[in-house]
Amino acid sequence: MIAVIAFDADDTLWHNERFFQLTKERFVEWLADYAAPEDLGARLYEAEKRNLDRYGFGVKGFTLSMIETAIEVSNANLPASVIRKILDEGREMLAHPVELLPGAGEAVDALARTHKLVIVTKGDLFHQERKIAASGLADYFAGLEIVSDKTPDTYRDVFARYGPAPEACAMVGNSLRSDISPAIEAGGWGVYVPHDLSWAYEHAEAPSAHPRFREIPELSQLPNLISELEPPAS
Amino acid sequence: MIAVIAFDADDTLWHNERFFQLTKERFVEWLADYAAPEDLGARLYEAEKRNLDRYGFGVKGFTLSMIETAIEVSNANLPASVIRKILDEGREMLAHPVELLPGAGEAVDALARTHKLVIVTKGDLFHQERKIAASGLADYFAGLEIVSDKTPDTYRDVFARYGPAPEACAMVGNSLRSDISPAIEAGGWGVYVPHDLSWAYEHAEAPSAHPRFREIPELSQLPNLISELEPPAS
Repeated sequence: MIAVIAFDADDTLWHNERFFQLTKERFVEWLADYAAPEDLGARLYEAEKRNLDRYGFGVKGFTLSMIETAIEVSNANLPASVIRKILDEGREMLAHPVELLPGAGEAVDALARTHKLVIVTKGDLFHQERKIAASGLADYFAGLEIVSDKTPDTYRDVFARYGPAPEACAMVGNSLRSDISPAIEAGGWGVYVPHDLSWAYEHAEAPSAHPRFREIPELSQLPNLISELEPPAS
Repeated sequence: MIAVIAFDADDTLWHNERFFQLTKERFVEWLADYAAPEDLGARLYEAEKRNLDRYGFGVKGFTLSMIETAIEVSNANLPASVIRKILDEGREMLAHPVELLPGAGEAVDALARTHKLVIVTKGDLFHQERKIAASGLADYFAGLEIVSDKTPDTYRDVFARYGPAPEACAMVGNSLRSDISPAIEAGGWGVYVPHDLSWAYEHAEAPSAHPRFREIPELSQLPNLISELEPPAS
């Protein structure tokens, strides 16, 4: 019944938010003389949201927003050496090893035998390509779609390009806002795999009552779930 | 004979390097206390090249490389207010208006009636999408390919996706290194439209003797050129 399975990448196939959290902890330490941790976190999040329409998603924009926030909270009084630390940290984030989430490798290996698999991810083009290559999973996927944002139109395009019909396509991801809701709105299935860490921006209400919504705790359960999915009687 | 025409975007369809040059002039002024202009330019170029394998191409990486260079040449002694200027300048670059190059709009309008047109560009995904939308030209193109780098394989993929055969595809651009040489190596035609400003990184030898190489001074001459191209007798 399902012909195409689209996967989010960050925090669905591999760890990602963990690296952002570690960086934010260091950022808080470096700026301890200028701002309290909660206040700093709120200011950084404001800067990230404010800059989304210029920077889009990804580590480079995050690094620039950290620098901006550091200058802001210190009234431009912090030493340039702190900014150098932030720059170095951003470059480290872009090179961190890719660690698959539990069950991800096995699920992808099993499902690639029977379904067409696609990755749909946002963020920096260059960085996402590097992570996909480093994951060792690239060959399982018929397509890699690196997009600037994930809206219902994004999924309409992906489902039209790879699938026979939207209801034969499932999107698997950890973000209700970016993966699940817009994929369901585009006519596909949304398989939510929550991750214990997630960026505030990605929070949304789970469409629990929707007939094409499913939730599983781990990717290891995905092959079974997919085999059970059938279009709801209309 | 030619079925598909692929266009580079920056400094082929619209101005781009001009904005980088203006920014570099300001950067040199702001750092005048710490480095001589030529030395600063060389250090910045070194940082850009060194960071390509982390940042890829685009304005965000350029902004980060400017900040890194400023800290480097000042031995981390410059005031944070200078870094704020660099950040602001980078954000401005990401929002600058799109100004078409002479003849670009007319050439695209004319050729879209008879050929399949595609944009192939590198840089920040989000920024390139914004520029394509702002150019008013998006509807003329059958595809927008935003890629992390332009190698012969990039063009093999593009020519295979859009064209009947590589020799029925032409790539039009201002970079010998990124647009012309790899497109010819991939079996297509390379139509070089030089731009008086170009980034040192993009310089390369013109393959003037190659039967599928052409050069025109302006896009206004492209429709005529395309109508004259025929596969060389082999």
